[in-house]
Amino acid sequence: MLSAMNTAVVLAGCGRGDGTEITEAVSVLVHCARLGMRARCFAPNQPSVDTIDHATGKADQGTRNLMVEAARIARGDIAPLETLHAHDFDALLFPGGFGAAKNLCDFASKGPQCDVHPQVRRVVGAFAAASKPMGFICIAPVIAARLLPGCELTIGTDAATASALHAMGATHVPKGVTECHVDERALVVSTPAYMHDANPWEVFTGIGKLVEEVARLGRMRGPSGT
Amino acid sequence: MLSAMNTAVVLAGCGRGDGTEITEAVSVLVHCARLGMRARCFAPNQPSVDTIDHATGKADQGTRNLMVEAARIARGDIAPLETLHAHDFDALLFPGGFGAAKNLCDFASKGPQCDVHPQVRRVVGAFAAASKPMGFICIAPVIAARLLPGCELTIGTDAATASALHAMGATHVPKGVTECHVDERALVVSTPAYMHDANPWEVFTGIGKLVEEVARLGRMRGPSGT
Repeated sequence: MLSAMNTAVVLAGCGRGDGTEITEAVSVLVHCARLGMRARCFAPNQPSVDTIDHATGKADQGTRNLMVEAARIARGDIAPLETLHAHDFDALLFPGGFGAAKNLCDFASKGPQCDVHPQVRRVVGAFAAASKPMGFICIAPVIAARLLPGCELTIGTDAATASALHAMGATHVPKGVTECHVDERALVVSTPAYMHDANPWEVFTGIGKLVEEVARLGRMRGPSGT
Repeated sequence: MLSAMNTAVVLAGCGRGDGTEITEAVSVLVHCARLGMRARCFAPNQPSVDTIDHATGKADQGTRNLMVEAARIARGDIAPLETLHAHDFDALLFPGGFGAAKNLCDFASKGPQCDVHPQVRRVVGAFAAASKPMGFICIAPVIAARLLPGCELTIGTDAATASALHAMGATHVPKGVTECHVDERALVVSTPAYMHDANPWEVFTGIGKLVEEVARLGRMRGPSGT
């Protein structure tokens, strides 16, 4: 019997302006369930960099805990990012949103000179070392560009962000919202999602292809622990 | 040329414990886009009844504005519920979550003696008077039971909630998570979603059928304004 693929999903808050983009995260979880993959959510157990009023788009007061807010998406089934270990999972997925560019790294403020959250650095390094596939959605490919120099990624067609990826040593491949790009060597899949001005069905469709490709790369490798 | 169906989606916060269930709301928006329906989100512009820490499930301090939080799901494209008028839309959809049972009505505390938010009462009454279809997901059918006595609804198979629907004068029809029930006379469609212990793909599938049925009822009626 084929065992279900175990997939770790890294969130950071809840909402595109200061956290994980919600439609992207839900699309990941829906497609994992569709394909019979077990998904477990993780997030840094620490305050967000900022809080955005999503009705006005303006900065709000205070901060919110990234894991506690991400638990809204995960329906309570979430754990601190430091408890995520590559040997427990077959694949790793990063939805986008400014949460990824502000809290999982500081690309939003520093661009190609960004630093990556130490726990994200540790986890991505461990999955890469174990040759386990990873998927990066929307703006999250900047994390892969920083940590896996030379890999192929798409963030859609935005020239400034593509240029930043190049500056970090990655190769950018333009793609539409319902497409994804697969780097077969690095075992990295990416899809633009809301980096395009798209509707929720298009975003859902592109993420579906990404999850399918990550699952294919995981099956080629075999079950976890091998 | 067929004009796109205009659909109003009523949210109340962001997160199952104190607001709109996120997977249900995203499923509504994805399926509307898939079927070529224009969706616009509305929510009460007022504080929530409570705030729940979704990592622990326990009550947290303070309240949050229902519209500002719902804007996280709607990516900022949201308006106050009092600006929703039936003559602008062809259909009305209510995702579930405790936001619907605490903030759009007080079913969570009062059961079948619940009162409905005055703006929800106004809006549902106007859509019913105009013979425009409505969809109620998860726990949201309690709103229809209170406002449209005698209508047929499903909340899945939970005996206590089904009994409460009966007490309010509705007829309960047991359904699985990937099914919906259509009351052709009242033009009301319902699906259990997370009233069942289900996975995100099952919830997404059931909501897809609900949106399809609402669209069918709307097409039978013809475009808005007729």
